[in-house]
Amino acid sequence: MTTGSQTDIYTRRESNARSYCRSFPVTFVSANNATLTDDSGRDYIDFLAGCSSLNYGHNDAEMKQALLDYISSDGVTHGLDMHTRAKENFLAAFEKLILAPRGMDHKVMFTGPTGTNAVEAAMKLARKTTGRETIVAFTNGFHGMTMGALAATGNEGKRAGGGMAPSGVVRMPYEGAIEGVDSLALIREMLENPSSGIDAPAAFLIEPVQGEGGLNAASGEFLRGIAELAREHGALLIADDIQSGIGRTGRFFSFEEMGVMPDLIPLAKSLSGMGLPLAALLIRPDLDVWKPAEHNGTFRGNNHAFVTARIALEKFWSDGAFAAATSEKGAFLTRRLNEIAAHVPGATLKGRGMMQGIDVGSGELAADICAACFEHGLIIETSGAHDEVVKILAPLTIPQAQFAEGLDILEAAVKAQTATTRIAAE
Amino acid sequence: MTTGSQTDIYTRRESNARSYCRSFPVTFVSANNATLTDDSGRDYIDFLAGCSSLNYGHNDAEMKQALLDYISSDGVTHGLDMHTRAKENFLAAFEKLILAPRGMDHKVMFTGPTGTNAVEAAMKLARKTTGRETIVAFTNGFHGMTMGALAATGNEGKRAGGGMAPSGVVRMPYEGAIEGVDSLALIREMLENPSSGIDAPAAFLIEPVQGEGGLNAASGEFLRGIAELAREHGALLIADDIQSGIGRTGRFFSFEEMGVMPDLIPLAKSLSGMGLPLAALLIRPDLDVWKPAEHNGTFRGNNHAFVTARIALEKFWSDGAFAAATSEKGAFLTRRLNEIAAHVPGATLKGRGMMQGIDVGSGELAADICAACFEHGLIIETSGAHDEVVKILAPLTIPQAQFAEGLDILEAAVKAQTATTRIAAE
Amino acid sequence: MTTGSQTDIYTRRESNARSYCRSFPVTFVSANNATLTDDSGRDYIDFLAGCSSLNYGHNDAEMKQALLDYISSDGVTHGLDMHTRAKENFLAAFEKLILAPRGMDHKVMFTGPTGTNAVEAAMKLARKTTGRETIVAFTNGFHGMTMGALAATGNEGKRAGGGMAPSGVVRMPYEGAIEGVDSLALIREMLENPSSGIDAPAAFLIEPVQGEGGLNAASGEFLRGIAELAREHGALLIADDIQSGIGRTGRFFSFEEMGVMPDLIPLAKSLSGMGLPLAALLIRPDLDVWKPAEHNGTFRGNNHAFVTARIALEKFWSDGAFAAATSEKGAFLTRRLNEIAAHVPGATLKGRGMMQGIDVGSGELAADICAACFEHGLIIETSGAHDEVVKILAPLTIPQAQFAEGLDILEAAVKAQTATTRIAAE
Amino acid sequence: MTTGSQTDIYTRRESNARSYCRSFPVTFVSANNATLTDDSGRDYIDFLAGCSSLNYGHNDAEMKQALLDYISSDGVTHGLDMHTRAKENFLAAFEKLILAPRGMDHKVMFTGPTGTNAVEAAMKLARKTTGRETIVAFTNGFHGMTMGALAATGNEGKRAGGGMAPSGVVRMPYEGAIEGVDSLALIREMLENPSSGIDAPAAFLIEPVQGEGGLNAASGEFLRGIAELAREHGALLIADDIQSGIGRTGRFFSFEEMGVMPDLIPLAKSLSGMGLPLAALLIRPDLDVWKPAEHNGTFRGNNHAFVTARIALEKFWSDGAFAAATSEKGAFLTRRLNEIAAHVPGATLKGRGMMQGIDVGSGELAADICAACFEHGLIIETSGAHDEVVKILAPLTIPQAQFAEGLDILEAAVKAQTATTRIAAE
Repeated sequence: MTTGSQTDIYTRRESNARSYCRSFPVTFVSANNATLTDDSGRDYIDFLAGCSSLNYGHNDAEMKQALLDYISSDGVTHGLDMHTRAKENFLAAFEKLILAPRGMDHKVMFTGPTGTNAVEAAMKLARKTTGRETIVAFTNGFHGMTMGALAATGNEGKRAGGGMAPSGVVRMPYEGAIEGVDSLALIREMLENPSSGIDAPAAFLIEPVQGEGGLNAASGEFLRGIAELAREHGALLIADDIQSGIGRTGRFFSFEEMGVMPDLIPLAKSLSGMGLPLAALLIRPDLDVWKPAEHNGTFRGNNHAFVTARIALEKFWSDGAFAAATSEKGAFLTRRLNEIAAHVPGATLKGRGMMQGIDVGSGELAADICAACFEHGLIIETSGAHDEVVKILAPLTIPQAQFAEGLDILEAAVKAQTATTRIAAE
Repeated sequence: MTTGSQTDIYTRRESNARSYCRSFPVTFVSANNATLTDDSGRDYIDFLAGCSSLNYGHNDAEMKQALLDYISSDGVTHGLDMHTRAKENFLAAFEKLILAPRGMDHKVMFTGPTGTNAVEAAMKLARKTTGRETIVAFTNGFHGMTMGALAATGNEGKRAGGGMAPSGVVRMPYEGAIEGVDSLALIREMLENPSSGIDAPAAFLIEPVQGEGGLNAASGEFLRGIAELAREHGALLIADDIQSGIGRTGRFFSFEEMGVMPDLIPLAKSLSGMGLPLAALLIRPDLDVWKPAEHNGTFRGNNHAFVTARIALEKFWSDGAFAAATSEKGAFLTRRLNEIAAHVPGATLKGRGMMQGIDVGSGELAADICAACFEHGLIIETSGAHDEVVKILAPLTIPQAQFAEGLDILEAAVKAQTATTRIAAE
Repeated sequence: MTTGSQTDIYTRRESNARSYCRSFPVTFVSANNATLTDDSGRDYIDFLAGCSSLNYGHNDAEMKQALLDYISSDGVTHGLDMHTRAKENFLAAFEKLILAPRGMDHKVMFTGPTGTNAVEAAMKLARKTTGRETIVAFTNGFHGMTMGALAATGNEGKRAGGGMAPSGVVRMPYEGAIEGVDSLALIREMLENPSSGIDAPAAFLIEPVQGEGGLNAASGEFLRGIAELAREHGALLIADDIQSGIGRTGRFFSFEEMGVMPDLIPLAKSLSGMGLPLAALLIRPDLDVWKPAEHNGTFRGNNHAFVTARIALEKFWSDGAFAAATSEKGAFLTRRLNEIAAHVPGATLKGRGMMQGIDVGSGELAADICAACFEHGLIIETSGAHDEVVKILAPLTIPQAQFAEGLDILEAAVKAQTATTRIAAE
Repeated sequence: MTTGSQTDIYTRRESNARSYCRSFPVTFVSANNATLTDDSGRDYIDFLAGCSSLNYGHNDAEMKQALLDYISSDGVTHGLDMHTRAKENFLAAFEKLILAPRGMDHKVMFTGPTGTNAVEAAMKLARKTTGRETIVAFTNGFHGMTMGALAATGNEGKRAGGGMAPSGVVRMPYEGAIEGVDSLALIREMLENPSSGIDAPAAFLIEPVQGEGGLNAASGEFLRGIAELAREHGALLIADDIQSGIGRTGRFFSFEEMGVMPDLIPLAKSLSGMGLPLAALLIRPDLDVWKPAEHNGTFRGNNHAFVTARIALEKFWSDGAFAAATSEKGAFLTRRLNEIAAHVPGATLKGRGMMQGIDVGSGELAADICAACFEHGLIIETSGAHDEVVKILAPLTIPQAQFAEGLDILEAAVKAQTATTRIAAE
């Protein structure tokens, strides 16, 4: 517990919008890889990882050292979008290690260092290049909090925060969202019927795996179907890989090997490698019709982030070892979650790779499980429309033993809470 | 000039949206206070200061050291909105050094570390708390690039980037925007006439000094008038102090001593002190009706920025010395700009404090002047609806001699370009 | 064919928006019951009936006489919404013959004498009373051409006419719109999932039978399901009975005996009885929160229409004979259409009561059939998203022999065109 | 007073939206020229004339006879937009007597027989042809109640009825709307400043005389200025002549002899001559890009109205006598209103031609005056943002003696009420 005279500074001065700190009411002071340490010296295993912003863990030693060196040498910290050595090196590494090997000729747009900014840039560009307004978004989608992206975000609480009805988006069910309904067939029919009332769309905006929406993972068949529909109807495919990308599901992009190549790809969260604010929009080059500064942002050139982002690329993506290790961890996670889920009647596994969780059927139970985990030193959160999914977003770099330890804590919590619930129900 | 094999990485891989790098086509590698250094070792005086994101200069030694220490100690880098020592210390310093001395009981909301995010949060909250949709924004206003803020941004080029008509904003002339028209009287009449077609507004969103719009500085009378109108009509006053605040005009807030206390104050740019991404929305406490996470953002807790921001507050705002020095520099700037403007027939001074410039009457001339300055080692940009204002946004910490040197370069460029223009016209 | 010097007045002076006159390029001069007569004296059987505006046929003798008497006596023609004897008598008859017997305590609002005006009033009132913006409309729905109603209209051609994206409506599939999808289950899920992105609706706006959309007839089960969903979610049920009401399906309202009582019911088309412009919105009394003139319209009190509308009510709705006769005609129509449809491979019957048609599978074939009918003296039109439905909207008062004659012409045309198509395909 | 058992039918069954009947709570049964007669046989002089829908008075003998003949001969009553003799004759007369003599090559679009429908069609067409969304409307403008037109209507009460914020319109001050502000200069500056935030408009939508907004009459200079601005900025000029046209200010169109030729002209109210619902949009021929039925409406071909409208054109517009007589009546009205206004301290004259009134400075006084008039047999209403203008909209055909009598009643009421007010104030 935080103590001392400053402890009520949050209630006194921070907005009520604060949230995670309510679930984990301690003061964290340091962090390394998958471990967070509070001001009493207690360690916590981090299964939240900054909501997938810390895929490489906290304070990776090499990134840290590169950043210390950069700062020590008076490297440019803030440079708007001016050329700097740090930016040049990042771009070159991104081209060499990510784009070129995947045959992607996309351009990179630095949009302001938040995911919502990258999504807004994508939506604007889709509308601008197609001359259409409607963007198709999906049930349970989460794309950000600014008005453009909020229109595409499904959560009613978040939407209510807007204070006015957002516009420009129509909503379609994600794969499997509605029992017994083939979402793809439904969407196809809505687009092909000229009297459906669905105007020709500028784009489809989809998360290959829905992080906030409950770890719903689209199949390759579904993604290819959407890509095909987009092509047929003159619309763009925007794959929001902000939470699901940068290795989270194994490969750098979550849609790799699914046979689709999105036109626009917003990236953020783990892009900087070390949790520093950085976002980018990858743009199919013929769509890069921006005029200079037509979309801009003061912090679009976060040079500290360029430094660490380059290290991350070079360290983890120079060969296939990291992806392979992640896949292996993901398989381990599936096995363990299956065992854990067995304790909860009706529970199901959700997600893909290192972005998995258990739908325990109720938000109350999921919250109780997470609270119990925290008591035992595990930081873990829920997701889903009813917060009914216990979500594991461990750093991809978490040591195997610590990963197993965290899952043991989870299993114990699940067993205890399920028992409690059962007893309460009797 | 940038040289070598990587030099075309920008044309090859960076989006056409890039802009400043076109005016300053060199590769910067390091920076200290008001000096930027390129990869050939050449120094440039920085009169742009990250568009007012570097009010304390580049890489302030104390902030740098604190950040190095923090990183070395594995301080939490990314913590979502969890409690950290760095955040706690920043909030405490902000309360003690900024809010309390000014009698402000505002709450602080971390909104995602970009100005547009803070503006969006303000617009959302104004609509949510008043139940009204219309926000009054002003001619030449600039508030950001995401769809909510873009609706309030005046620039037609930026607006065109949206690809669809933004909604929820009505536009009124800023003070002095239209010759012979008393903007305040006009606005009052439009609001008081029940058939004017202007719906009761949720808020007025105003920059006390318009940075991008041409360094238009509102008078205290105008701001008080708007504040009074807001009160009379049940609307909020949102003072966007993102560019004009954090000491830029002398005081911490640009509206201090103007007799107004805004309900909502978006801050960003120089808030972190060192150019790291950080933004906040100050909220009159009774308006802080957010539910947990009703507006959020992955990077809303940029702990590196908290560290440097706290140092900035302690170093520059513990007493009145910095504000006094800034005012003095501002007065010096006024004197020098008056001398410089005398070379340009019809030129006028714009702005306030260390946020001043010269309206040279044409965007071409202003661009030529800035280009000539760059050749002589001065980084300076234009502003205004026609880019007709040469804008001086030097770090507030710039040494007096360097400041004078920069202004000398500017004067020489103005004289040379004005002569050229005159000759060309003959 | 129209002849003479004035014949090109239409191409010279009437807007290209004109449409039906292109299918029926003659000049009509008189009309009686189900017969239209052109300027050469040729008679046509009318299976279009003003798109259901002439349910009682052209120029009913009693309505005509009442109108002649009224005009001769200098009865008030235009009275805004002032009290007139004609209005009073209509309201009294509507109460006595329509509302009271059905246990309806609805208020009657005269909205301006067009269907779209009544729909707009309904949409406005639904939003105003619920404080919500979203109205759920359905695939293939048609509700009018003004911007509010157009948002709810599905046809892409009509929507394109708006020149901007309409707002405030989300679209759901009508019953049976998508093969294999249970529309009601889909809608329920979209409303119950708090992250679906579908905001809580102000209302459901539905045509019990979709006239323009292809004669899709909702089942009682579907309508009750929608009504139940509306109730559960605090939304209103708006039944647009403009084309399907006033006896078209047998009863006065098309939803009678379906176990639902809509909150708002827009009426127009056949309301005046004789084809004079008149529209009304029926309002559940507690929802009648309009302030005086909050919605108005110059022609909302069309007294000529009140006169004929009253006669229509007294003549046709004083007992159940007319409804019974209509049902009988509807049954006859079903039998004949079944026989006719048998000539077209894959053809299906659509609609309900005297609002039926044949889906012949292609817009080209349907157009050819209608053109062939016109050549043989039958006025008939298509409907549906692809204009693939040949639609029979005969006056309900059509003499049985003439009805049979019209259907014989249709059968002959269907046989001939189907043969032609078959030959062309060989 | 209305008596008898049916008298509460209005409170029992008519929506609260009803309005004029509240000011004039009697039952009218017949009407001739400028006289309305109630069910007790009492006559009233009509200075309201259906809000300018009865410019030729009630039940003109020739129109009446032509309509009786038409109905007796079973003339087509409802014909959608099919060719009928009645429509052909109307179009031919409109071409010959109105369009050709004025050198207008406009096309005529029948839009559904309400003013708001014609305005919506104009707004849609302006957006469609320019590819722009913004329409500039004016303070105190009134254009209709459906969502598109409502966006352009200024009155806050009417706007509140919409239940959601209408979009696509920016508001500018009408000529003289704001004391000391040159509206034209203001508008010019707002359009010419590329950072004003006012997007390039599709059209200006203006009433040459604002009927509901307080009888504000634009000068030729202002209208020409707006027309010029429209041309310069690629926008259309829409002159809403629904209330001010059809002879109300002397000429057929209110903008004649002002040196402007609008691109789009919505007409309604007095177009049919006898108060029957009819509306049209006049379209500059190159703008007539509608596809068939792209905008439609069931009652767009009101043949009864075509019959009377043709008679009206032939009777009143075959030569200049009617216009001259109207101008003379207008001059008489000005003289008498000047005398009457002299009784009210600070009162001013408003309007033009036979569309004039007195601004008595307060809505209460204006209402009292109108109520007193009604007691003495004069039907007259208020207008203006505060209902502060007593508005005279007598039939243009009113006999001189009756006109004078009505004005005498008005004068007496003004004197009495002003005295009352003065006494009350003492």
